[in-house]
Amino acid sequence: MNALEKLKNRNKKHLHICVGLDTDINKIPKHLLQTDDPIFEFNKAIINETREFAAAYKFNLAFYEAGGTKTIRSLEKSIAEIPSDILTIGDAKRGDIGNTSAMYAKSLFEHFGFDASTLNPLMGYDSLEPFFNYQNKLHFVLGLTSNPGSADFEQLKLSNGNFLYEEIITKVKSWGENIGIVFGATNEEQLEKSIDLLRGLPLLIPGVGSQGGSLENIVQILFENNLNDFLINISRSLIYLDKSENFAYFTKIQLTKLNEIIRNLTDKNEKTN
Amino acid sequence: MNALEKLKNRNKKHLHICVGLDTDINKIPKHLLQTDDPIFEFNKAIINETREFAAAYKFNLAFYEAGGTKTIRSLEKSIAEIPSDILTIGDAKRGDIGNTSAMYAKSLFEHFGFDASTLNPLMGYDSLEPFFNYQNKLHFVLGLTSNPGSADFEQLKLSNGNFLYEEIITKVKSWGENIGIVFGATNEEQLEKSIDLLRGLPLLIPGVGSQGGSLENIVQILFENNLNDFLINISRSLIYLDKSENFAYFTKIQLTKLNEIIRNLTDKNEKTN
Repeated sequence: MNALEKLKNRNKKHLHICVGLDTDINKIPKHLLQTDDPIFEFNKAIINETREFAAAYKFNLAFYEAGGTKTIRSLEKSIAEIPSDILTIGDAKRGDIGNTSAMYAKSLFEHFGFDASTLNPLMGYDSLEPFFNYQNKLHFVLGLTSNPGSADFEQLKLSNGNFLYEEIITKVKSWGENIGIVFGATNEEQLEKSIDLLRGLPLLIPGVGSQGGSLENIVQILFENNLNDFLINISRSLIYLDKSENFAYFTKIQLTKLNEIIRNLTDKNEKTN
Repeated sequence: MNALEKLKNRNKKHLHICVGLDTDINKIPKHLLQTDDPIFEFNKAIINETREFAAAYKFNLAFYEAGGTKTIRSLEKSIAEIPSDILTIGDAKRGDIGNTSAMYAKSLFEHFGFDASTLNPLMGYDSLEPFFNYQNKLHFVLGLTSNPGSADFEQLKLSNGNFLYEEIITKVKSWGENIGIVFGATNEEQLEKSIDLLRGLPLLIPGVGSQGGSLENIVQILFENNLNDFLINISRSLIYLDKSENFAYFTKIQLTKLNEIIRNLTDKNEKTN
Protein backbone atom coordinates (compact mmCIF):
# COMPACT_ATOMS: atom_id res chain seq x y z
CA MET A 1 0.00 0.00 0.00
CA ASN A 2 1.54 3.34 -0.98
CA ALA A 3 1.44 6.47 1.14
CA LEU A 4 -1.52 8.10 -0.58
CA GLU A 5 -3.57 4.90 -0.23
CA LYS A 6 -2.80 4.78 3.49
CA LEU A 7 -4.06 8.34 3.86
CA LYS A 8 -7.22 7.76 1.80
CA ASN A 9 -8.08 4.53 3.61
CA ARG A 10 -8.09 6.26 6.98
CA ASN A 11 -9.90 9.31 5.62
CA LYS A 12 -12.65 7.04 4.27
CA LYS A 13 -13.15 5.77 7.84
CA HIS A 14 -13.72 9.42 8.84
CA LEU A 15 -10.36 9.54 10.57
CA HIS A 16 -8.55 12.82 9.92
CA ILE A 17 -6.55 13.57 13.07
CA CYS A 18 -2.79 13.16 12.73
CA VAL A 19 -1.19 12.59 16.12
CA GLY A 20 1.88 14.80 16.33
CA LEU A 21 4.60 13.14 18.37
CA ASP A 22 6.57 16.27 19.32
CA THR A 23 7.90 14.39 22.29
CA ASP A 24 9.79 16.57 24.76
CA ILE A 25 11.47 14.90 27.72
CA ASN A 26 10.60 17.92 29.89
CA LYS A 27 6.86 17.48 29.28
CA ILE A 28 6.28 13.75 29.59
CA PRO A 29 5.00 12.06 32.81
CA LYS A 30 7.73 11.90 35.43
CA HIS A 31 7.42 8.14 36.10
CA LEU A 32 8.77 7.47 32.58
CA LEU A 33 12.08 9.07 33.46
CA GLN A 34 12.98 5.93 35.41
CA THR A 35 12.87 3.80 32.24
CA ASP A 36 15.84 3.23 29.91
CA ASP A 37 14.26 5.16 27.05
CA PRO A 38 11.56 7.55 28.33
CA ILE A 39 10.82 9.12 24.94
CA PHE A 40 10.28 5.74 23.31
CA GLU A 41 8.12 4.50 26.21
CA PHE A 42 5.98 7.62 25.95
CA ASN A 43 5.51 7.24 22.18
CA LYS A 44 4.84 3.50 22.44
CA ALA A 45 2.07 4.04 24.97
CA ILE A 46 0.44 6.79 22.89
CA ILE A 47 0.68 4.73 19.69
CA ASN A 48 -0.73 1.59 21.28
CA GLU A 49 -3.74 3.44 22.71
CA THR A 50 -4.53 5.48 19.62
CA ARG A 51 -3.76 3.23 16.64
CA GLU A 52 -7.42 2.57 15.86
CA PHE A 53 -8.40 6.23 16.07
CA ALA A 54 -5.50 8.11 14.49
CA ALA A 55 -5.40 8.96 10.79
CA ALA A 56 -1.60 9.25 10.79
CA TYR A 57 1.39 9.90 13.03
CA LYS A 58 3.75 12.81 12.51
CA PHE A 59 7.22 12.88 14.06
CA ASN A 60 8.78 16.30 14.40
CA LEU A 61 12.46 15.59 13.82
CA ALA A 62 13.66 18.62 15.78
CA PHE A 63 12.52 16.99 19.01
CA TYR A 64 14.57 13.87 18.31
CA GLU A 65 17.68 15.61 16.99
CA ALA A 66 17.92 17.79 20.08
CA GLY A 67 19.21 14.85 22.16
CA GLY A 68 21.68 13.52 19.59
CA THR A 69 22.18 9.83 18.90
CA LYS A 70 20.24 8.70 21.99
CA THR A 71 16.98 10.31 20.95
CA ILE A 72 17.48 9.49 17.25
CA ARG A 73 17.47 5.88 18.44
CA SER A 74 14.20 6.58 20.33
CA LEU A 75 12.76 7.82 17.04
CA GLU A 76 13.85 4.71 15.13
CA LYS A 77 12.24 2.46 17.75
CA SER A 78 9.04 4.54 17.87
CA ILE A 79 8.48 4.35 14.11
CA ALA A 80 8.71 0.56 14.34
CA GLU A 81 5.72 0.57 16.72
CA ILE A 82 3.34 2.00 14.12
CA PRO A 83 1.18 -0.51 12.21
CA SER A 84 2.24 -0.72 8.57
CA ASP A 85 -1.16 0.43 7.25
CA ILE A 86 -0.96 3.83 8.98
CA LEU A 87 0.78 6.80 7.37
CA THR A 88 3.94 8.05 9.10
CA ILE A 89 5.17 11.57 8.40
CA GLY A 90 8.76 12.70 8.96
CA ASP A 91 8.22 16.41 9.63
CA ALA A 92 11.56 18.06 8.92
CA LYS A 93 10.74 20.77 6.34
CA ARG A 94 13.83 19.90 4.30
CA GLY A 95 14.93 21.48 1.03
CA ASP A 96 18.49 22.03 -0.23
CA ILE A 97 20.57 21.74 -3.40
CA GLY A 98 19.97 18.50 -5.28
CA ASN A 99 22.77 16.29 -4.01
CA THR A 100 22.00 17.34 -0.42
CA SER A 101 18.25 16.85 -0.77
CA ALA A 102 19.00 13.37 -2.12
CA MET A 103 20.74 12.59 1.18
CA TYR A 104 17.86 14.00 3.25
CA ALA A 105 15.40 11.94 1.20
CA LYS A 106 17.52 8.85 1.73
CA SER A 107 17.52 9.55 5.47
CA LEU A 108 13.75 10.04 5.73
CA PHE A 109 12.56 7.31 3.38
CA GLU A 110 15.29 4.65 3.46
CA HIS A 111 16.88 4.98 6.86
CA PHE A 112 13.81 5.90 8.94
CA GLY A 113 11.26 4.45 6.53
CA PHE A 114 8.73 7.29 6.73
CA ASP A 115 5.79 7.27 4.30
CA ALA A 116 5.73 11.04 3.92
CA SER A 117 7.80 14.16 4.42
CA THR A 118 7.24 17.88 4.82
CA LEU A 119 9.28 20.07 2.46
CA ASN A 120 10.32 23.72 2.24
CA PRO A 121 10.00 24.94 -1.37
CA LEU A 122 12.00 28.22 -1.14
CA MET A 123 14.95 26.88 -3.15
CA GLY A 124 12.72 25.70 -6.01
CA TYR A 125 12.20 22.62 -8.16
CA ASP A 126 15.62 20.96 -8.12
CA SER A 127 15.68 21.20 -4.30
CA LEU A 128 12.54 19.02 -4.09
CA GLU A 129 12.97 16.68 -7.07
CA PRO A 130 15.05 14.08 -5.15
CA PHE A 131 12.10 13.70 -2.76
CA PHE A 132 9.48 13.52 -5.53
CA ASN A 133 11.53 10.72 -7.11
CA TYR A 134 10.24 8.50 -4.29
CA GLN A 135 6.95 7.96 -6.07
CA ASN A 136 5.30 5.71 -3.48
CA LYS A 137 5.79 8.37 -0.83
CA LEU A 138 3.73 11.49 -0.14
CA HIS A 139 5.38 14.93 -0.07
CA PHE A 140 3.69 17.75 1.83
CA VAL A 141 5.14 21.06 0.62
CA LEU A 142 4.77 24.22 2.73
CA GLY A 143 2.03 26.37 1.25
CA LEU A 144 0.85 28.79 3.93
CA THR A 145 2.07 28.10 7.45
CA SER A 146 0.21 28.62 10.72
CA ASN A 147 2.66 30.96 12.46
CA PRO A 148 2.58 34.80 12.62
CA GLY A 149 5.75 34.96 10.49
CA SER A 150 3.81 33.66 7.48
CA ALA A 151 3.04 37.36 6.91
CA ASP A 152 6.73 38.20 6.40
CA PHE A 153 7.26 36.42 3.08
CA GLU A 154 4.60 33.77 2.32
CA GLN A 155 1.84 36.38 2.19
CA LEU A 156 3.72 38.98 0.16
CA LYS A 157 2.07 40.02 -3.07
CA LEU A 158 3.95 39.32 -6.29
CA SER A 159 4.05 41.53 -9.36
CA ASN A 160 1.74 39.04 -11.14
CA GLY A 161 -0.96 39.64 -8.52
CA ASN A 162 -0.60 36.31 -6.70
CA PHE A 163 0.48 36.01 -3.13
CA LEU A 164 3.74 34.07 -2.80
CA TYR A 165 1.97 31.09 -1.16
CA GLU A 166 -0.49 30.93 -4.08
CA GLU A 167 2.41 30.96 -6.55
CA ILE A 168 4.10 28.19 -4.56
CA ILE A 169 1.00 25.99 -4.58
CA THR A 170 0.36 26.65 -8.29
CA LYS A 171 3.90 25.72 -9.30
CA VAL A 172 4.41 22.83 -6.92
CA LYS A 173 1.26 20.98 -7.96
CA SER A 174 2.63 20.76 -11.51
CA TRP A 175 5.90 19.22 -10.32
CA GLY A 176 4.89 15.64 -9.69
CA GLU A 177 2.39 13.10 -8.45
CA ASN A 178 1.80 12.38 -4.77
CA ILE A 179 2.28 15.97 -3.72
CA GLY A 180 0.35 17.47 -0.83
CA ILE A 181 0.32 20.92 0.74
CA VAL A 182 0.83 22.16 4.30
CA PHE A 183 -1.81 24.82 5.02
CA GLY A 184 -2.10 26.32 8.50
CA ALA A 185 -5.43 26.18 10.33
CA THR A 186 -4.95 29.74 11.55
CA ASN A 187 -5.62 30.99 7.99
CA GLU A 188 -9.37 30.34 7.51
CA GLU A 189 -9.97 33.21 5.15
CA GLN A 190 -7.04 32.26 2.91
CA LEU A 191 -8.17 28.63 2.94
CA GLU A 192 -11.59 29.58 1.63
CA LYS A 193 -10.04 31.73 -1.11
CA SER A 194 -7.58 28.96 -2.07
CA ILE A 195 -10.06 26.09 -2.22
CA ASP A 196 -9.98 25.70 -6.00
CA LEU A 197 -6.20 25.90 -6.05
CA LEU A 198 -5.99 23.15 -3.42
CA ARG A 199 -8.54 20.81 -4.99
CA GLY A 200 -7.04 17.37 -5.62
CA LEU A 201 -4.10 17.92 -3.27
CA PRO A 202 -3.99 16.08 0.04
CA LEU A 203 -3.65 18.62 2.85
CA LEU A 204 -1.67 18.53 6.06
CA ILE A 205 -3.15 21.13 8.39
CA PRO A 206 -1.23 22.19 11.48
CA GLY A 207 -2.18 25.00 13.85
CA VAL A 208 -5.25 23.58 15.63
CA GLY A 209 -4.89 23.48 19.40
CA SER A 210 -1.97 25.30 21.00
CA GLN A 211 -1.62 27.63 18.00
CA GLY A 212 -5.27 28.71 18.06
CA GLY A 213 -6.81 27.33 14.84
CA SER A 214 -10.43 26.09 15.01
CA LEU A 215 -10.97 22.42 14.17
CA GLU A 216 -14.69 22.90 13.47
CA ASN A 217 -14.27 25.89 11.18
CA ILE A 218 -11.48 24.35 9.12
CA VAL A 219 -13.17 20.98 8.69
CA GLN A 220 -16.46 22.66 7.79
CA ILE A 221 -14.75 24.70 5.05
CA LEU A 222 -13.16 21.53 3.63
CA PHE A 223 -16.27 19.35 3.75
CA GLU A 224 -18.61 21.96 2.30
CA ASN A 225 -16.20 22.20 -0.64
CA ASN A 226 -15.90 18.42 -0.98
CA LEU A 227 -12.23 18.29 -0.01
CA ASN A 228 -11.99 14.98 1.80
CA ASP A 229 -8.31 14.02 1.74
CA PHE A 230 -6.77 15.86 4.64
CA LEU A 231 -5.01 15.48 7.95
CA ILE A 232 -5.43 17.83 10.89
CA ASN A 233 -2.27 17.61 12.93
CA ILE A 234 -2.54 18.03 16.70
CA SER A 235 0.51 17.68 18.90
CA ARG A 236 0.89 19.43 22.26
CA SER A 237 -2.81 19.73 23.06
CA LEU A 238 -3.34 16.01 22.49
CA ILE A 239 -0.31 14.21 23.89
CA TYR A 240 0.35 16.18 27.09
CA LEU A 241 -3.12 15.98 28.69
CA ASP A 242 -2.21 14.00 31.77
CA LYS A 243 0.86 13.20 33.86
CA SER A 244 -0.32 9.95 35.49
CA GLU A 245 0.46 6.37 34.47
CA ASN A 246 -2.75 6.47 32.42
CA PHE A 247 -1.62 9.43 30.32
CA ALA A 248 -2.15 7.64 26.99
CA TYR A 249 -5.75 6.80 27.89
CA PHE A 250 -6.53 10.51 28.19
CA THR A 251 -5.03 11.08 24.74
CA LYS A 252 -7.24 8.34 23.34
CA ILE A 253 -10.39 9.81 24.92
CA GLN A 254 -9.60 13.27 23.57
CA LEU A 255 -8.83 11.83 20.13
CA THR A 256 -12.18 10.03 19.99
CA LYS A 257 -13.92 13.30 20.94
CA LEU A 258 -12.16 15.10 18.07
CA ASN A 259 -13.11 12.27 15.72
CA GLU A 260 -16.73 12.67 16.81
CA ILE A 261 -16.67 16.39 16.04
CA ILE A 262 -15.41 15.60 12.55
CA ARG A 263 -17.94 12.76 12.12
CA ASN A 264 -20.79 15.12 13.02
CA LEU A 265 -19.55 17.63 10.45
CA THR A 266 -19.41 14.83 7.85
CA ASP A 267 -23.03 13.89 8.54
CA LYS A 268 -24.16 17.53 8.48
CA ASN A 269 -22.50 18.14 5.11
CA GLU A 270 -23.73 14.86 3.62
CA LYS A 271 -27.30 15.90 4.47
CA THR A 272 -26.74 19.35 2.93
CA ASN A 273 -25.14 18.08 -0.28
CA MET B 1 35.82 34.15 21.25
CA ASN B 2 32.38 34.43 19.67
CA ALA B 3 31.49 33.17 16.21
CA LEU B 4 31.84 36.48 14.40
CA GLU B 5 35.29 37.04 15.94
CA LYS B 6 36.40 33.60 14.77
CA LEU B 7 35.32 34.47 11.23
CA LYS B 8 36.96 37.90 11.24
CA ASN B 9 40.22 36.59 12.68
CA ARG B 10 40.64 34.12 9.85
CA ASN B 11 39.50 36.63 7.21
CA LYS B 12 42.16 39.06 8.47
CA LYS B 13 44.74 36.36 7.72
CA HIS B 14 43.42 36.33 4.13
CA LEU B 15 41.76 32.96 4.72
CA HIS B 16 38.29 32.79 3.14
CA ILE B 17 37.81 29.18 2.04
CA CYS B 18 35.33 27.19 4.10
CA VAL B 19 35.99 23.47 3.78
CA GLY B 20 32.64 21.74 3.23
CA LEU B 21 32.63 18.32 4.83
CA ASP B 22 29.82 16.76 2.78
CA THR B 23 31.28 13.40 3.56
CA ASP B 24 29.73 10.56 1.56
CA ILE B 25 30.81 7.01 2.33
CA ASN B 26 30.53 6.14 -1.37
CA LYS B 27 33.10 8.78 -2.35
CA ILE B 28 35.86 8.43 0.24
CA PRO B 29 39.06 6.43 -0.33
CA LYS B 30 38.40 2.71 -0.17
CA HIS B 31 41.10 1.93 2.40
CA LEU B 32 39.12 3.87 5.02
CA LEU B 33 36.26 1.39 4.78
CA GLN B 34 38.32 -1.06 6.83
CA THR B 35 38.32 1.27 9.85
CA ASP B 36 35.62 1.32 12.56
CA ASP B 37 34.36 4.76 11.57
CA PRO B 38 35.36 5.61 7.98
CA ILE B 39 33.52 8.93 7.85
CA PHE B 40 35.19 10.16 11.02
CA GLU B 41 38.62 8.97 9.86
CA PHE B 42 38.15 10.81 6.55
CA ASN B 43 37.11 14.05 8.29
CA LYS B 44 39.88 13.80 10.88
CA ALA B 45 42.55 13.48 8.19
CA ILE B 46 41.16 16.42 6.20
CA ILE B 47 40.87 18.60 9.32
CA ASN B 48 44.37 17.79 10.55
CA GLU B 49 45.94 18.63 7.18
CA THR B 50 43.96 21.81 6.53
CA ARG B 51 43.52 23.48 9.94
CA GLU B 52 46.10 26.20 9.25
CA PHE B 53 44.69 27.01 5.82
CA ALA B 54 40.92 26.79 6.24
CA ALA B 55 38.79 29.80 7.18
CA ALA B 56 36.01 27.58 8.57
CA TYR B 57 34.51 24.10 8.36
CA LYS B 58 30.95 23.46 7.25
CA PHE B 59 29.19 20.19 8.00
CA ASN B 60 26.22 19.39 5.78
CA LEU B 61 23.87 17.61 8.16
CA ALA B 62 22.08 15.67 5.42
CA PHE B 63 25.19 13.58 4.84
CA TYR B 64 25.34 12.57 8.52
CA GLU B 65 21.60 11.99 9.01
CA ALA B 66 21.46 9.63 6.05
CA GLY B 67 23.16 6.87 8.03
CA GLY B 68 21.18 7.29 11.26
CA THR B 69 22.75 7.13 14.71
CA LYS B 70 26.04 5.68 13.47
CA THR B 71 26.89 8.63 11.22
CA ILE B 72 25.48 11.18 13.67
CA ARG B 73 28.12 9.83 16.05
CA SER B 74 30.74 10.32 13.29
CA LEU B 75 29.62 13.95 13.11
CA GLU B 76 29.91 14.47 16.87
CA LYS B 77 33.45 13.06 16.85
CA SER B 78 34.47 15.10 13.78
CA ILE B 79 33.37 18.41 15.31
CA ALA B 80 35.56 17.65 18.33
CA GLU B 81 38.61 17.51 16.04
CA ILE B 82 38.31 21.16 15.01
CA PRO B 83 40.47 23.66 16.92
CA SER B 84 38.33 25.92 19.10
CA ASP B 85 39.43 29.12 17.32
CA ILE B 86 38.02 28.01 13.93
CA LEU B 87 34.38 28.61 13.00
CA THR B 88 32.19 25.52 12.59
CA ILE B 89 28.97 25.76 10.60
CA GLY B 90 26.07 23.32 10.99
CA ASP B 91 24.54 23.53 7.52
CA ALA B 92 20.98 22.33 7.91
CA LYS B 93 18.83 25.19 6.52
CA ARG B 94 16.35 24.89 9.40
CA GLY B 95 13.30 27.04 9.99
CA ASP B 96 10.00 26.00 11.60
CA ILE B 97 7.39 27.26 14.08
CA GLY B 98 8.93 28.75 17.22
CA ASN B 99 8.85 25.81 19.63
CA THR B 100 10.27 23.52 16.91
CA SER B 101 13.00 25.97 15.87
CA ALA B 102 13.95 26.20 19.54
CA MET B 103 14.62 22.45 19.49
CA TYR B 104 16.63 22.66 16.26
CA ALA B 105 18.68 25.51 17.73
CA LYS B 106 19.28 23.47 20.87
CA SER B 107 20.44 20.57 18.72
CA LEU B 108 22.85 22.65 16.61
CA PHE B 109 24.30 24.90 19.28
CA GLU B 110 24.03 22.92 22.53
CA HIS B 111 24.17 19.30 21.48
CA PHE B 112 26.61 19.57 18.55
CA GLY B 113 28.21 22.84 19.67
CA PHE B 114 28.36 24.49 16.23
CA ASP B 115 29.37 28.17 16.06
CA ALA B 116 27.02 28.95 13.19
CA SER B 117 23.96 27.69 11.36
CA THR B 118 22.31 28.13 7.99
CA LEU B 119 18.62 29.07 8.12
CA ASN B 120 15.66 29.05 5.74
CA PRO B 121 13.63 32.26 6.18
CA LEU B 122 10.42 31.28 4.31
CA MET B 123 8.31 30.98 7.50
CA GLY B 124 9.32 34.45 8.74
CA TYR B 125 10.60 36.10 11.87
CA ASP B 126 9.27 33.85 14.63
CA SER B 127 10.70 30.81 12.83
CA LEU B 128 14.23 32.25 13.14
CA GLU B 129 14.06 34.10 16.46
CA PRO B 130 14.99 31.04 18.59
CA PHE B 131 18.26 30.83 16.63
CA PHE B 132 18.97 34.56 16.85
CA ASN B 133 18.57 34.29 20.64
CA TYR B 134 21.95 32.54 20.65
CA GLN B 135 23.79 35.84 20.46
CA ASN B 136 27.35 34.48 20.44
CA LYS B 137 26.56 32.39 17.37
CA LEU B 138 26.41 33.42 13.73
CA HIS B 139 23.29 32.80 11.66
CA PHE B 140 23.56 32.60 7.86
CA VAL B 141 20.11 33.09 6.36
CA LEU B 142 19.38 32.00 2.78
CA GLY B 143 19.34 35.05 0.53
CA LEU B 144 19.87 33.88 -3.04
CA THR B 145 20.93 30.28 -3.48
CA SER B 146 23.30 28.82 -6.08
CA ASN B 147 20.96 26.26 -7.67
CA PRO B 148 18.81 26.63 -10.83
CA GLY B 149 15.63 26.47 -8.70
CA SER B 150 16.46 29.86 -7.19
CA ALA B 151 14.56 31.22 -10.23
CA ASP B 152 11.31 29.54 -9.12
CA PHE B 153 10.61 31.67 -6.05
CA GLU B 154 13.67 33.53 -4.74
CA GLN B 155 13.98 35.57 -7.94
CA LEU B 156 10.28 36.39 -8.34
CA LYS B 157 9.45 40.07 -8.48
CA LEU B 158 7.20 41.43 -5.74
CA SER B 159 4.53 44.09 -6.16
CA ASN B 160 6.84 46.58 -4.36
CA GLY B 161 9.44 46.16 -7.12
CA ASN B 162 11.93 44.10 -5.09
CA PHE B 163 12.88 40.58 -5.94
CA LEU B 164 11.93 38.17 -3.15
CA TYR B 165 15.60 37.57 -2.23
CA GLU B 166 16.15 41.32 -1.88
CA GLU B 167 13.10 41.58 0.38
CA ILE B 168 14.42 38.67 2.45
CA ILE B 169 17.85 40.27 2.91
CA THR B 170 16.32 43.67 3.70
CA LYS B 171 14.01 42.28 6.39
CA VAL B 172 16.38 39.75 7.88
CA LYS B 173 19.19 42.23 8.47
CA SER B 174 16.89 44.22 10.76
CA TRP B 175 16.05 41.15 12.86
CA GLY B 176 19.13 40.84 15.01
CA GLU B 177 22.86 41.03 15.45
CA ASN B 178 25.25 38.36 14.19
CA ILE B 179 23.25 37.65 11.07
CA GLY B 180 24.90 36.66 7.83
CA ILE B 181 23.55 35.84 4.38
CA VAL B 182 23.96 32.84 2.08
CA PHE B 183 24.51 34.12 -1.48
CA GLY B 184 25.28 31.69 -4.29
CA ALA B 185 28.43 32.18 -6.37
CA THR B 186 26.50 31.33 -9.53
CA ASN B 187 24.73 34.72 -9.29
CA GLU B 188 27.48 37.23 -10.14
CA GLU B 189 25.19 39.83 -11.67
CA GLN B 190 22.80 39.77 -8.71
CA LEU B 191 25.73 39.98 -6.31
CA GLU B 192 26.97 43.17 -7.94
CA LYS B 193 23.48 44.68 -7.82
CA SER B 194 23.03 43.68 -4.16
CA ILE B 195 26.37 44.93 -2.86
CA ASP B 196 24.96 47.86 -0.90
CA LEU B 197 22.21 45.69 0.57
CA LEU B 198 24.80 43.15 1.71
CA ARG B 199 27.29 45.63 3.18
CA GLY B 200 28.04 44.85 6.82
CA LEU B 201 26.67 41.30 6.63
CA PRO B 202 29.09 38.36 6.72
CA LEU B 203 28.54 36.22 3.63
CA LEU B 204 28.58 32.47 3.16
CA ILE B 205 29.03 31.80 -0.54
CA PRO B 206 28.39 28.30 -1.91
CA GLY B 207 28.39 27.32 -5.56
CA VAL B 208 32.09 27.53 -6.48
CA GLY B 209 33.48 24.30 -7.88
CA SER B 210 31.06 21.51 -8.77
CA GLN B 211 28.18 23.97 -9.18
CA GLY B 212 30.08 26.20 -11.61
CA GLY B 213 30.59 29.51 -9.80
CA SER B 214 33.87 31.36 -10.42
CA LEU B 215 36.08 31.93 -7.36
CA GLU B 216 38.05 34.74 -9.02
CA ASN B 217 35.03 36.68 -10.25
CA ILE B 218 33.16 36.50 -6.95
CA VAL B 219 36.13 37.44 -4.80
CA GLN B 220 37.02 40.30 -7.15
CA ILE B 221 33.48 41.73 -6.85
CA LEU B 222 33.65 41.54 -3.06
CA PHE B 223 37.14 43.04 -2.70
CA GLU B 224 36.60 45.88 -5.14
CA ASN B 225 33.56 46.83 -3.05
CA ASN B 226 35.44 46.51 0.25
CA LEU B 227 33.41 43.55 1.50
CA ASN B 228 35.97 41.57 3.45
CA ASP B 229 33.99 39.32 5.80
CA PHE B 230 33.06 36.31 3.73
CA LEU B 231 33.47 32.59 3.35
CA ILE B 232 33.61 30.76 0.04
CA ASN B 233 32.43 27.23 0.69
CA ILE B 234 33.95 24.44 -1.37
CA SER B 235 33.00 20.84 -0.76
CA ARG B 236 33.10 18.14 -3.42
CA SER B 237 35.81 19.72 -5.58
CA LEU B 238 38.13 20.05 -2.60
CA ILE B 239 37.71 16.93 -0.47
CA TYR B 240 37.47 14.22 -3.15
CA LEU B 241 40.63 14.96 -5.13
CA ASP B 242 42.45 11.73 -4.49
CA LYS B 243 41.70 8.16 -3.43
CA SER B 244 45.12 7.18 -2.06
CA GLU B 245 46.27 7.11 1.57
CA ASN B 246 47.56 10.66 1.02
CA PHE B 247 44.15 12.02 0.02
CA ALA B 248 44.18 14.77 2.67
CA TYR B 249 47.51 16.08 1.43
CA PHE B 250 45.99 16.74 -2.00
CA THR B 251 43.17 18.66 -0.33
CA LYS B 252 45.72 20.77 1.52
CA ILE B 253 47.68 21.56 -1.66
CA GLN B 254 44.52 22.57 -3.52
CA LEU B 255 43.38 24.69 -0.56
CA THR B 256 46.69 26.56 -0.47
CA LYS B 257 46.35 27.21 -4.23
CA LEU B 258 42.88 28.68 -3.71
CA ASN B 259 44.21 30.78 -0.84
CA GLU B 260 46.93 32.10 -3.15
CA ILE B 261 44.36 33.11 -5.77
CA ILE B 262 42.50 35.07 -3.10
CA ARG B 263 45.71 36.58 -1.72
CA ASN B 264 46.66 37.81 -5.18
CA LEU B 265 43.26 39.43 -5.57
CA THR B 266 43.71 41.09 -2.15
CA ASP B 267 47.03 42.58 -3.23
CA LYS B 268 45.65 43.71 -6.57
CA ASN B 269 42.72 45.49 -4.92
CA GLU B 270 44.85 47.02 -2.17
CA LYS B 271 47.06 48.56 -4.87
CA THR B 272 44.02 49.86 -6.75
CA ASN B 273 42.30 51.30 -3.64
